[in-house]
Order: sequence, then structure tokens, then C-alpha cells
Amino acid sequence: MIGPTSPEERAERARTVFDFLDADVASLVLFDDQFIQYYTDFVFHPTERPVALIISREGERTLFVPDLEREHAAQAGQLEHVVTYPEYPGKEHPLELLCRHLAALELTGHIIGVDYDGYPPVMGYTGPLLSEHFRIKRISPMLDRQLSLKSPHEIALICESARWGHRAHELLQAYTAPGKTETEVEARATREATAEMTAALGPDFRSRNRWLGGAVALYRGQVGVNSALPHAVNINATFAVGDTLVTGAGAGVYGYLSELERTMFIGEPSAEQRGYFEHMLNLQDLAFEQLRPGATCASVDEAVRGYYERENLTAFWRHHVGHSLGQRIHESPFLDVGDKTVLEPGMVLSVEPGIYVPGLGGFRHSDTVLITRTGIEKLTTYPSDLHSLTI
Amino acid sequence: MIGPTSPEERAERARTVFDFLDADVASLVLFDDQFIQYYTDFVFHPTERPVALIISREGERTLFVPDLEREHAAQAGQLEHVVTYPEYPGKEHPLELLCRHLAALELTGHIIGVDYDGYPPVMGYTGPLLSEHFRIKRISPMLDRQLSLKSPHEIALICESARWGHRAHELLQAYTAPGKTETEVEARATREATAEMTAALGPDFRSRNRWLGGAVALYRGQVGVNSALPHAVNINATFAVGDTLVTGAGAGVYGYLSELERTMFIGEPSAEQRGYFEHMLNLQDLAFEQLRPGATCASVDEAVRGYYERENLTAFWRHHVGHSLGQRIHESPFLDVGDKTVLEPGMVLSVEPGIYVPGLGGFRHSDTVLITRTGIEKLTTYPSDLHSLTI
Repeated sequence: MIGPTSPEERAERARTVFDFLDADVASLVLFDDQFIQYYTDFVFHPTERPVALIISREGERTLFVPDLEREHAAQAGQLEHVVTYPEYPGKEHPLELLCRHLAALELTGHIIGVDYDGYPPVMGYTGPLLSEHFRIKRISPMLDRQLSLKSPHEIALICESARWGHRAHELLQAYTAPGKTETEVEARATREATAEMTAALGPDFRSRNRWLGGAVALYRGQVGVNSALPHAVNINATFAVGDTLVTGAGAGVYGYLSELERTMFIGEPSAEQRGYFEHMLNLQDLAFEQLRPGATCASVDEAVRGYYERENLTAFWRHHVGHSLGQRIHESPFLDVGDKTVLEPGMVLSVEPGIYVPGLGGFRHSDTVLITRTGIEKLTTYPSDLHSLTI
Repeated sequence: MIGPTSPEERAERARTVFDFLDADVASLVLFDDQFIQYYTDFVFHPTERPVALIISREGERTLFVPDLEREHAAQAGQLEHVVTYPEYPGKEHPLELLCRHLAALELTGHIIGVDYDGYPPVMGYTGPLLSEHFRIKRISPMLDRQLSLKSPHEIALICESARWGHRAHELLQAYTAPGKTETEVEARATREATAEMTAALGPDFRSRNRWLGGAVALYRGQVGVNSALPHAVNINATFAVGDTLVTGAGAGVYGYLSELERTMFIGEPSAEQRGYFEHMLNLQDLAFEQLRPGATCASVDEAVRGYYERENLTAFWRHHVGHSLGQRIHESPFLDVGDKTVLEPGMVLSVEPGIYVPGLGGFRHSDTVLITRTGIEKLTTYPSDLHSLTI
């Protein structure tokens, strides 16, 4: 049965991260919860109480947390050191304590790689910048590069996520009917798929993902004419015959996720709906054909953009072809004309060119694919044809 | 029936924000989704695609969004201007377009108030700093000050949220029983309370809150001995007789939320559980007595810390008394020894001193209170006595 990423794999990430960085970076200080989870398995909700992870050039990890998280950090159990501070703002500001700790590590005068210049202003936090005391270099893109190259175990977790996203989507489709609301259908599909997943994956299973707490299927407000808004939010829509629907499904599995989206119709689609649906399938097929190791992200998006232009669909274009994903719901690189990254085996990306017709609806499938040595492997396998997706 | 914050009230916020800022700030450029929602009612999920809000000294608002959000931004319908860019990273980087726009507003050489120095590195985003082109001043604390003073309508929305958090908590308590799991109980209570709320608040109702999409009640893993972790996450625990439970409940109502938390027991609590529960009630009562306009946040926390010391509970202390809340789940000021803010009528705060006993459990009630002209008004009214909270 699938299990969590091993402590050894996470320790290895902390040791090898410096291979992705400039040689002058003496140490890392990270504040972003996603980077911290990636290197430590410590999961937290960012609040006004700063959390930081220090990684030395030797890969030694020190987690800096409020007392509130003391036992929680110790439970994570994969860390070389945990340093705590009493509270934020506290009698002494936590960042002053952190700076003293960094000075004791003899980092003064050396370059510290950071994601943020000090803890970011989350939920009312305010405090000094790290650059007031240390030389810093912003290195998020290099960490993102490391995140983009998935290990075999990471790929296995993404596949398991895809399996349960598939199941949640089946239930979402089964429960969607005229007169029902998106909220009730989403809640039921999500609840039942999550129950099935947790039963199947055993008592030790944990989602440990910031975006997906279980096996989830959603409409996010993309119902009827509102489906033309690519990133809408829940509007508690009531389904009706004639609606174009755009879904989203996935599951959090030991920190990792996947992405599955489908365009569906309630009742027989009109000729217009059918026409845009066919174009959308063509766009996605074109992207699949372009994806292979050695191709650039930009070249894939350019090829797809060519189709929009040839078919006079540019007015209905709203976004690039896709994005990497794994632990985060969006990661870099991006399948975008401005991203020159060369695709490599082990990268996992969403493929989701969309057509958005104001007043009519949105048309988008999204599949998660793995770049292999020879091309791609689709990790999501939900039916994508019109017949299967007509309710 | 309760409705959303009026466009006039949001426009007024954008006009009066400069009263909270130093006189040398010529304009604001904000990237944080919570600040942008507060001044515009535009709700979005932060991704790698930058979003920015420019507010001129005259209170004129310009929203800078990707094409993806074009119709969504126009729907918000409360803005003076919407400026779009094609995509991120795109052929031209969005921040370069933003900087050109700011230069055209003749802001070069003037001080721009910002929350972040450029769009933050969310989900793989990378780009230039604003300070490479403009003089900036970080002004988040001044915006937080404005957020902390609630209008009558904001208070009404928080009260409505408290009403539905109460209902969700009733259901959570009713469905909790030995052998059930936290995941299934949370999901059922949340689903049913959300359905009741949406039915009661009518077809135009929207939650529009980043943390609470409906009326929610949760355990967040604080079940049994694990309740001793103040900010744990879901572990899909199975309830058993003898468990100490710490809950959380609230509802998103037109952008606003409230906080209700209770310590509960499954079966008759032991003498030890009972003793800590009584101490926790005393701590909260002491905080309630201290809260009044004119008192400082620090003085409230100091009084409560005194009780921990007198009763030899300091080993079980993990966090300060509470925090402001409203649109965000945590806002400033904080009821903390390090926060010298003077309490004023219109502030809304959580009151939640806790006791965390490793190996036994956690003990915390949280109530949401309004600072009035004479003292406080409790906006959450769920029973807090031992008998009512024993399952």
C-alpha cells in the first residue's frame, strides 16, 4: 500500500538543494510553508506567528517555530533541530531571536538564500527584514526547479491522487441533476469519495496537502454561463438543462495532488456548445502531441496558440496550456510562451487549454501528465468524449 | 435580511485609508488578496499570476489582473478601472507592464505604499521587485489598523457568522460518538449547517470568505491526547470514550467570519480533565473582565499570564489570549504582552487562553467579542459549562 515520503528522501532533498543554488549561498532561510513541508514534512497553516526553516550547506535542518507548535514540530520527527520562541509579537520579537540564532551560526557577512526577505505580512504580522541584518539572495526559482523534478515515489503519490480524484469525479457526475445545487452535489461527492479513500488507504493514511484535505470534486461556480469565468468561486448555483459545466477534481495523498477537470453538459448540447467542445478537444490533443523531453514549455504553448489563431478562437483564449503540479496545486515551469524551460523526464504538468465564450460558457478539460523518456504518460484517465460527459 | 457590504462602504475605505498612512505616501500598490478584497470586493485565489490593486490619494482604484480574471473583475463592478495583462510569465513580464502603468501615473520618484515589494513568490511566481523602479514604504500595519475598526455593517456580518457557527457546532456535537471519525462527523455537520444557512439567507447569499466557504465545524485533529497540539491538522481520528476534544466552528457570511471553539469530553471526564477545564474557564473569565476600551492588549494578556503563574500552569501555556478577526481568520491587534495597542469600541477579538497538557489533552474555549463603549459584548453564545459539553 502507498505510504508517505520517507524521512531519508526528505533529508536527501535538503542535502541536494545546494546543487540547484549559486555557489556563494552559505545557508538557506525559508519562510514559505510549502518549501518547509517539502524539506521537512512539517505541515502548518501560516499565521502571524513566524515559522522558518534553516538549512545549512551540509543539509542540516533547523525549524524555528512558536511554542504553540513545539510538540507538533517534534512529532514531525525528521529534523536535526527545533528552536522555539514564546509567542508573536511577544516581549522580544521572534525575528530578533531568529537573527541572533543566524548570527550564532556565523552567517553574518555571508549570503543567505531566502524565499522572502523576512517573514511575510501574513494575518497582521509585521517585523524586520532579514536584509537589515544579513546579505540575502532570493532563490525561490531554484527551489522550484528542484520541486519540478519528481522522484518515483512522488510520481506514485500523484498517481494515487489521480485515482481518487477520478472516483470523486464519478460521484460528482452521478449526483449532478437539474434542480440540485453545486454546493450540495460537491459536498456529497467529496464526502463519499473521501470516506472511500480513507477506508482504502488504511488507518495511517493522511492527506497532508494544503489544497485538498480528502478526495474532492468541485464546480467552483463554473455552472451555466458562469462557466465562462476560468477561475470563479462557488456561487451556490442551481443546475438546469442546457448548462455547460466545468469541474475540478483531485485528492490529497501524503502531501501530493493531481488535477482532473472536465467539461460536461446537462441535456443534449446545442450545436454551438458541441462546436466549442470539439475545438477544446483538438487543442488538448495538439498539446499532448507536443509534450516530450527536449521540447520547451514555450513551444507547446506556441503550437496551441497557433490553433486558436487559425480557428478564430483568440477572443475566447484566457490562459496558457498548463502548469506543473505535485505538492502545490500550481508549480513552475508553466506551459507558456514566456517560459523557456526544457521539459525533462520526471516533470508532471497539467494540460488544460480552455475556450471561454462570454454569455455561453467555458470549455476546458485538464489532465495530469508525466514527462517520460519518450513522451508522456497520462496520469488521469477519466473519459473525455462528449457522450460520456453529457448528463 | 443581511446583505453584502455596500459598494459605497468599500469606496469609502479606499478614500479614508490615507488617513492611516504617513503623509508622504503618494499611492498604494497592494498584492495581498485580503487587502484587495477589503477595498474592492474582488475575491480571488492567489496563484502565480500576479494581481495588484492601485489606490490613488483620491481613492481611485485600479485593479491589475490577468485576462483570465477579466470578466470576473468586471463583475465585481465596484472599481474605477480594470487593467489586464495576457498571461504569466508571458512574452512581456506582467510586473513590467505594471511598472509602466505606475510610471504613466507619474509615480516615479514618489513614495508608493506597499504590502509586498513586488508580487510575492506564490506557486512558482518569480519577478522583479517594485523597489528596483520605485521608492517604496511597507505599510501593512497601517492597513491592519484600518481593518481592526469594524463598521456597524461589518459587526452585523460577524454576528450572522456567529449564529451559523453556533448551528454547525450543535450538529458537530450531536454527531460525535465513540467509533465515528472526525472526518465523517465534520463533513456531516458542515454539510447540513451550510445547507441550512444557504436556505435561510436566500438565493443571493455568498460566503466570499477565504477560510470558510459555508458554516463549518471541525476538530482539526484535536482529538484525545492529540488535542494537546494547539494548531494540529486533521488526522482522521476515531473518537473513543475518555477523549478530550477541542473544536472550531464558524461561517463565512459575505466575506466575514467569527470564531467559536469548545472543549468537550466523551464520557464523564476524569478529575484531572475536570480540573484543567475549570482552570481554562477561569482564565477566559479573567480575560473577559480585563477587556474594555482604554485597556491595552498587553494588559489583558499580562493579567491572564499572572493566573498561569499563580496556579503553576505555565508549563501548559502555549499562546497568548487572542487575536482580532473579521474578514481574516487572524487580524491584528493581538491580545499579547508585546502588543501595546489600546482597545477601542468597534474592535472584534477572539478570547481563547488555552491549557495544553502533553499526554492528556488540550483545554480551550474561544469566543468572539466586540469591544463596546463600556466593555464587551459576546458575539458567540454557545454553552461553555462542563455539563453541556460532555457527550
